[in-house]
Amino acid sequence: MKSEKISELTTKRLSVYLRCLQTLDRNGIHTISSRSMADQFHLNSAQIRKDLAYFGEFGVRGVGYQVSHLAQHLTKILGLNQEHRVIICGAGNLGRALCDYAGFNTEGFRIVALFDQDPKKIGGTSRSGVPVHDIKKLKQIVRREGVDIVVITVPADAAQKVVDLVCETGVKAILNFAPVRLRVNTNVKLKTVDLKVSLESLSYYLSNPSLPAAVNPPE
Amino acid sequence: MKSEKISELTTKRLSVYLRCLQTLDRNGIHTISSRSMADQFHLNSAQIRKDLAYFGEFGVRGVGYQVSHLAQHLTKILGLNQEHRVIICGAGNLGRALCDYAGFNTEGFRIVALFDQDPKKIGGTSRSGVPVHDIKKLKQIVRREGVDIVVITVPADAAQKVVDLVCETGVKAILNFAPVRLRVNTNVKLKTVDLKVSLESLSYYLSNPSLPAAVNPPE
Repeated sequence: MKSEKISELTTKRLSVYLRCLQTLDRNGIHTISSRSMADQFHLNSAQIRKDLAYFGEFGVRGVGYQVSHLAQHLTKILGLNQEHRVIICGAGNLGRALCDYAGFNTEGFRIVALFDQDPKKIGGTSRSGVPVHDIKKLKQIVRREGVDIVVITVPADAAQKVVDLVCETGVKAILNFAPVRLRVNTNVKLKTVDLKVSLESLSYYLSNPSLPAAVNPPE
Repeated sequence: MKSEKISELTTKRLSVYLRCLQTLDRNGIHTISSRSMADQFHLNSAQIRKDLAYFGEFGVRGVGYQVSHLAQHLTKILGLNQEHRVIICGAGNLGRALCDYAGFNTEGFRIVALFDQDPKKIGGTSRSGVPVHDIKKLKQIVRREGVDIVVITVPADAAQKVVDLVCETGVKAILNFAPVRLRVNTNVKLKTVDLKVSLESLSYYLSNPSLPAAVNPPE
């Protein structure tokens, strides 16, 4: 396996391929060509071949990919063969919703705690029973629970302070939903999901209706 | 202004620039160079110049960009000089949270209704008072309210059916949170935000710690 940096876009596509392969596997499909996989899931077959070739020779000429074998490899490449323990800082609407959302608190990722500074929220739980702790206990609980991913759902003006606290705990991966640009240590991976930016790109499309709409790359 | 297609990544960056300019404007900054803007917000100055040059000559050599002037232009380019009317299909945890989330139901975007098929949810409201309607009334309410953007927060196995209903209403822009690949008419812009894909890219990073982490492009 090559060890150079692969792009953020490639890892997103690997996630999409894995989901497609899992669907095929559930449907009892054992082998599939890149062409057929592309057709079925609205993907680009040349891109599939290129992305997967990067990680080694998975396909067999004239036969295609072995679905479960390739799914296992992608699972390993994406680090999903072990469970990640996740906490959410910010027990507001978005934080609690993510905590209880099946598309998020799901196989491979276990949300073990919420954190907040609001005394009214501390001591409570989400609907699904995830406890809300005092943000002051962050370091202690991160260590006790073996947390390796932190999700930030606090308001924009509180986000940097919380991210600084998270960096002190030694956690190396942060998913930020606060609409603000944050500084982290160089050895910490910060990913920002800005929901308003997504709405704005739709707004851009609506005010430029001459643009082709059908191109919907995996994101 | 050039009329060719600009990439999805460029529109995301324009959103980020707009947010930076609004921050500068609030802080009373009238002009800024691409270099200084890049330093302040952890962006790439050559990329800023390239992206903005695409839309015309905004900068003045030796002076930089006029902050409020450029912000106005970007607002117009992104179609944010008019309010978009948004509905959310799926009044579960995520749908209701987005509805009440300040980072989403915000300037330029007004969430006017939630939809669901669950009789227990229909007739209720979100915490902030947005009504939950029967999905059967989708077409009628989309027309009455002048809706132009639809957000999908139903489970994966219901998403295609709901998207088909949305396409029938004539709405041209869809933001999908269901973790599934969806088909739409070629004149409809579909954008998928897959929250699990974001977690998986962090997982990839954690299992490949030799990768540089500090590169965090605007998304």
